[in-house]
Amino acid sequence: MMGEHSSKQYDHDLEAIRSKVLLMGGMVETQFLDAMTCFRIGNVERAERVIREDDAVNQLEVQLDDQCSHLIVRRQPAANDLRTIMATIKVITDLERIGDEATKIARTAKSLHSRGAVTVNHYEMVRTIATATSDMLHDALDAFARNDHNQALQLIAQDAVIDHEFRSIMRNLITFMMEDPRTISAALDTMWVAKAIERIGDHAKNIAEYVIYVVEGRDIRHSKPAGVATDIAETKEI
Amino acid sequence: MMGEHSSKQYDHDLEAIRSKVLLMGGMVETQFLDAMTCFRIGNVERAERVIREDDAVNQLEVQLDDQCSHLIVRRQPAANDLRTIMATIKVITDLERIGDEATKIARTAKSLHSRGAVTVNHYEMVRTIATATSDMLHDALDAFARNDHNQALQLIAQDAVIDHEFRSIMRNLITFMMEDPRTISAALDTMWVAKAIERIGDHAKNIAEYVIYVVEGRDIRHSKPAGVATDIAETKEI
Repeated sequence: MMGEHSSKQYDHDLEAIRSKVLLMGGMVETQFLDAMTCFRIGNVERAERVIREDDAVNQLEVQLDDQCSHLIVRRQPAANDLRTIMATIKVITDLERIGDEATKIARTAKSLHSRGAVTVNHYEMVRTIATATSDMLHDALDAFARNDHNQALQLIAQDAVIDHEFRSIMRNLITFMMEDPRTISAALDTMWVAKAIERIGDHAKNIAEYVIYVVEGRDIRHSKPAGVATDIAETKEI
Repeated sequence: MMGEHSSKQYDHDLEAIRSKVLLMGGMVETQFLDAMTCFRIGNVERAERVIREDDAVNQLEVQLDDQCSHLIVRRQPAANDLRTIMATIKVITDLERIGDEATKIARTAKSLHSRGAVTVNHYEMVRTIATATSDMLHDALDAFARNDHNQALQLIAQDAVIDHEFRSIMRNLITFMMEDPRTISAALDTMWVAKAIERIGDHAKNIAEYVIYVVEGRDIRHSKPAGVATDIAETKEI
């Protein structure tokens, strides 16, 4: 076991890591919002900021992984504390991937608007899923910040709603394309954006699962959530 | 520092984990091949095996994460050894995601063939990317098994080729859809399959990067590979 002094030092180091993870979380949230703004109104400056910001997010991932390793080597945490660090390492990976997805949205938005190919009401198609996912990401980071296990549990059910909405968007886009093949190019861009949003929802769900893992000491990945519409989640067919 | 006895025990535990990771790697490789067979010839049995197998892969992920945690707590590894464990934890996550992508391919293949909607030569469209990705995954697991840093370096360049091929498939599919809107549904299924394959390539690349991280002690994620067609990788716009 660690002595009192060492334990305080451990808490201090862990708190520094957690603050930086939350900083990273705030950065990818902003990336996502900026990318959606560009998708909505074609603000190219905004898209370029998202793409630039991704370098900073990537650097934070490398730094944070390194800090977690150092913490383990120096403080030799017991099982409980190690669980927190392991979950943090996984959360960092998910945040980095959210940054990647936001960057893809920004690139697609830039390309769509530069071609002037707006022949489906592209933003309206994804407005609902974008808002739901943005809320979910925000709540997941909040649950992580406060180690709030109840909030995390609620979020996991939310992901099935996003998957459902995603499939509904796909059906609508297919109808558009069939009715007017000139919309195909814009519809496909909208489809990739919807897909990236749905992925961000998956990552937010992962973060919620790690919060539960830390608080409950129970790994709920790959287990069926009670009371959730699992039939929806299971028949998911991208 | 660990004593000789403890160090031998550590090596033994680590070897057990590595063997299990390679078992998991073999499982997801088979999942991918089976999913592609179903996509090619509509073998529903094969698709259902992929979907079933995914549970076993998911359970392995949870077990392996647990074994890695136990190893850290019991053996309190020094920085070098910890690097190997950290990389292993990340590789496990990538393998699990490869299983997810293979499962998505299997579901899409089943759905495509059950609708009888085969109006594009769907398998021919993805044959090249599927073969390249399958080779890449195999080589990445091989590099991990043998800690082969040179093989891993070569693989990273390979990913840009896969991304390039993916964009070429997209262009072809868009042409098909525009020329004959009746192909839209099958073309979209083919698109999602190509996307899943491209993701598997990304995960194989991640595995190669972790091999380099272990061998060289250098984190090359997010750094520009020398001599690789970075312009291709960077202009990726999907």
